[in-house]
Amino acid sequence: MGNSAIAIVGGDLRQICMANLLAEKTGIGSGASCDLYGLFLDKEMEMSSRITATDDVRVLEYCNIVIFALPMADTGDQTVNAPFSIHKVPLRDCFGHVRPGALVLGGMVKEKTAQLASEYGLVIEDYFLREELAVLNAVPTAEGALEIAMRESPRTIAGSICMITGYGRIAKALAPLLLSLGAKVKVGARKHEDLAWSKVAGCQPVHLSQLGEQLSDVEILFNTVPAMILDKGILKKLPPQCLIIDLASKPGGVDFETAKTLGLNVVWALSLPGKVAPITAGEILLDTIYHILEEKGFIIESD
Amino acid sequence: MGNSAIAIVGGDLRQICMANLLAEKTGIGSGASCDLYGLFLDKEMEMSSRITATDDVRVLEYCNIVIFALPMADTGDQTVNAPFSIHKVPLRDCFGHVRPGALVLGGMVKEKTAQLASEYGLVIEDYFLREELAVLNAVPTAEGALEIAMRESPRTIAGSICMITGYGRIAKALAPLLLSLGAKVKVGARKHEDLAWSKVAGCQPVHLSQLGEQLSDVEILFNTVPAMILDKGILKKLPPQCLIIDLASKPGGVDFETAKTLGLNVVWALSLPGKVAPITAGEILLDTIYHILEEKGFIIESD
Amino acid sequence: MGNSAIAIVGGDLRQICMANLLAEKTGIGSGASCDLYGLFLDKEMEMSSRITATDDVRVLEYCNIVIFALPMADTGDQTVNAPFSIHKVPLRDCFGHVRPGALVLGGMVKEKTAQLASEYGLVIEDYFLREELAVLNAVPTAEGALEIAMRESPRTIAGSICMITGYGRIAKALAPLLLSLGAKVKVGARKHEDLAWSKVAGCQPVHLSQLGEQLSDVEILFNTVPAMILDKGILKKLPPQCLIIDLASKPGGVDFETAKTLGLNVVWALSLPGKVAPITAGEILLDTIYHILEEKGFIIESD
Amino acid sequence: MGNSAIAIVGGDLRQICMANLLAEKTGIGSGASCDLYGLFLDKEMEMSSRITATDDVRVLEYCNIVIFALPMADTGDQTVNAPFSIHKVPLRDCFGHVRPGALVLGGMVKEKTAQLASEYGLVIEDYFLREELAVLNAVPTAEGALEIAMRESPRTIAGSICMITGYGRIAKALAPLLLSLGAKVKVGARKHEDLAWSKVAGCQPVHLSQLGEQLSDVEILFNTVPAMILDKGILKKLPPQCLIIDLASKPGGVDFETAKTLGLNVVWALSLPGKVAPITAGEILLDTIYHILEEKGFIIESD
Repeated sequence: MGNSAIAIVGGDLRQICMANLLAEKTGIGSGASCDLYGLFLDKEMEMSSRITATDDVRVLEYCNIVIFALPMADTGDQTVNAPFSIHKVPLRDCFGHVRPGALVLGGMVKEKTAQLASEYGLVIEDYFLREELAVLNAVPTAEGALEIAMRESPRTIAGSICMITGYGRIAKALAPLLLSLGAKVKVGARKHEDLAWSKVAGCQPVHLSQLGEQLSDVEILFNTVPAMILDKGILKKLPPQCLIIDLASKPGGVDFETAKTLGLNVVWALSLPGKVAPITAGEILLDTIYHILEEKGFIIESD
Repeated sequence: MGNSAIAIVGGDLRQICMANLLAEKTGIGSGASCDLYGLFLDKEMEMSSRITATDDVRVLEYCNIVIFALPMADTGDQTVNAPFSIHKVPLRDCFGHVRPGALVLGGMVKEKTAQLASEYGLVIEDYFLREELAVLNAVPTAEGALEIAMRESPRTIAGSICMITGYGRIAKALAPLLLSLGAKVKVGARKHEDLAWSKVAGCQPVHLSQLGEQLSDVEILFNTVPAMILDKGILKKLPPQCLIIDLASKPGGVDFETAKTLGLNVVWALSLPGKVAPITAGEILLDTIYHILEEKGFIIESD
Repeated sequence: MGNSAIAIVGGDLRQICMANLLAEKTGIGSGASCDLYGLFLDKEMEMSSRITATDDVRVLEYCNIVIFALPMADTGDQTVNAPFSIHKVPLRDCFGHVRPGALVLGGMVKEKTAQLASEYGLVIEDYFLREELAVLNAVPTAEGALEIAMRESPRTIAGSICMITGYGRIAKALAPLLLSLGAKVKVGARKHEDLAWSKVAGCQPVHLSQLGEQLSDVEILFNTVPAMILDKGILKKLPPQCLIIDLASKPGGVDFETAKTLGLNVVWALSLPGKVAPITAGEILLDTIYHILEEKGFIIESD
Repeated sequence: MGNSAIAIVGGDLRQICMANLLAEKTGIGSGASCDLYGLFLDKEMEMSSRITATDDVRVLEYCNIVIFALPMADTGDQTVNAPFSIHKVPLRDCFGHVRPGALVLGGMVKEKTAQLASEYGLVIEDYFLREELAVLNAVPTAEGALEIAMRESPRTIAGSICMITGYGRIAKALAPLLLSLGAKVKVGARKHEDLAWSKVAGCQPVHLSQLGEQLSDVEILFNTVPAMILDKGILKKLPPQCLIIDLASKPGGVDFETAKTLGLNVVWALSLPGKVAPITAGEILLDTIYHILEEKGFIIESD
């Protein structure tokens, strides 16, 4: 990456993986450099010798690319999300040391964080908004959902009857996995286009208006719709042994109170990529960031 | 379909299949009726006894649903596309007999045909514009492309190296077929989102800017982009035994002159659904028309 | 099952599932009966009301079919394998009450148990020796192995490089799962026939004589060969982060001492069907037992 | 292949492909040589410049490996199967010139041919008897069967209901293709072990004793059993539009007379590998012959 100096600020295993890959792939040692800030690691973490871990925020002053964590800030919007750091890393400290003209990247950047940055004349590019990131993350999410289903169900996926509500990215990645393991997969969606795609994939399409009539034999229900689709009326139509895996982001799509009363087993599975496959998730982050760098005119010296 | 009277005007095997399915599924004989006009069939065609074939255009006067062929009109824009009819079926004759308020449907309706209809106070609903039709048609198209590849290639699909240019509907249906038969599949596309989806499906994504570098081992190339992507410069990078199957609608995406000079085997495969799987194509048409009828408030009495 | 009386003696969740299915499927209540002995269940176990749980061994006297657990006997070869029973169930007690001419079935019947039975004039039919049982059990075993791989690996299965040593039943069930999730799968085997089958399935065949040369990029290694294949020399060629899942029955095929020294993560996964999918495993047992009953001339009144 | 001289006698496109591969892979030009005899080719055939085509049978005198065609002899058992040769190639002429100690290979060697060879002190190794050849050939056979099904059926394979009778090699290669294209696949077999494998693959197992009850909805029937399974009684239970593809070697498993009377569409598909994928079939032949050479102690200098 030419003569770039890169700082990675905060983050978890994904950022470490990203840093290691960056160290491997870029021309580090041959004129370029790559610095890490804010990652105070456990001994067990393996880090490339080409990476300098530091807790001196002034390192940002000579970096032209600064990559913040995913999500970027802790609840409270004052500090960087830096779970491996032994002390807090205030956003203001960082912003105050970023040099003018540097490219600043962050993930899931909240309005408050963006405003804070703008006080320092900084605009943050949110890599989490990139469509390719969301698409590629669907794979670890789907694998994580499958792992939960395998762990929680007393049957094999082979021969089981599954229902997926919603047919967006996650459903499109999950359905083929279940089918190829030998499950029968129904997909509940509202748009004819989505139902058509689910049929092309080999699923049985179910219009949401007929969802209630298709639940009595369902053994595993995966919800991907972030709206209260699985309400009391629907939950009552599920067999009592049905396993529900809610993959929808908050507030989710399941009426948990009713599910509890009915004795249904509900697993709320959020942020699976970083949990089930941190290395893959780090690779995906880096790929996405590369695309942004390319579009901003940075020259990539790939391997 | 309540007390509807339906006319199907013109068309090929797909319309016959559609008519037969309609006869089976609707409450024909129990108060509803279904008439066909313009389909003068060969003896070998099997038609439900519930369907009345007629050449009297006045039958349209008592139909409240009139379904024209796909495409609706012949070249010249004067007559209905009715390959099985022994005489021409002028559009004006039909339009003049459609009763006011009837729902008129047609496929691939050209501007001229729409204008002609408007002279008679008619608005044609083009079922070919429905997204679900395009999605579902991707399956017979993909199977047709696979059949051509199998027929033309002296190797098995298993173990072969394929390239698909473009990653729209057809490519999304075709890639899994090739992969599940054991081919290695590269996908050439421009958008990172499309490349991400192709990777999720198990393909090797290739940015179009690097297409030329990924062609030397390609044995079968499927083009789905309706733009001159496979120009002289690109074609020259293909091995001479490479088979090219162009699935893009006119004017296609292959420089045929150059391909010919280079001795490349190019198959231009258009309108595959009606050719390779007329019954399935008819089912897809009917499903799509059902959705339109539903949305227009017609009550469907399904089986 | 006509007027049969069936006893199920000992066992775990699989036998309970089997009993419930048997109660559902057979003509219980209509002239036939089905008794259980030795299954003293927790309150949480759900059992069909058609099943009589009892601890009176004399119930065997009027049963013409007696089905023992899998494995049949505890270590020590004196008592029935009955983990849910609060008291021991001596084999001699059971054998002494089986009526002459009854069909006696057991799983993994050891020589000592067979000898003991013969003292009572009984011959035990070992259902675990049936080929279809072993074949069908390969599915829960493969799913269990996949679940372990997903849990232990910091990457997705998609994109990972796997090696399976051996290409018997389990490998044949496991390879398609890994492939369909997007892994690259190498198969190490000795016989050209096995290598050919692995190639047909989409794997990369590796002759065992070249195994060492194909290990440097392997991320997950599944061993299915019950012989010391993964010895010191081989283990040293694996990358240090490689995950090893040993699916071979005792004594397994991995040199654990060396693996430990090298810091390799080895998971020894035995008897997966009963652990990961007890209901499916129970269904498989029952199907197999049905086949035996059919061959012995018992009439099955299926649903 | 060291200092070997190899002759390929007779054969079709597969032998030419084999010869070309052999020329590429072996150390021809660097001390070894590779001669072809009996292949008098059309101008269109592309042959490696390293291969000498000749019609002088005396070339066999200095070859230590002689590879005959598949099948080896024409009907009549007097001449080599050499469809591309302009004159007949008598077996006696060849045998008389093979030098003592040479390795002689042939495919589908009939008793009469073996006897003739023994008069000259020659023992022919039949490469067609190798299990790996039969396994690998199942792939082009399955693809050929799929191509026929696609061509002959007015529906897509997706959504169609198929029956495969028999579950040997071809069925094991064909079933996953049909399933992955979206067909429902029933498998009729007699052995519980085979039925179990078909279930593991995702098919619906049907015991042959119940075959008749499972035919009324079958749209495509693939027979792989070389015995009269599809007799009058069975054929009558098929719907009249059912397509039958007979993949069993002579005399096949279909009562053609009855099928004709019933108006069923029967395609008798024999020797598919050489027809649908001659290059792949040639590669498979060569791989198999390599294994024989290896076992006989010839050193292979692979690429």
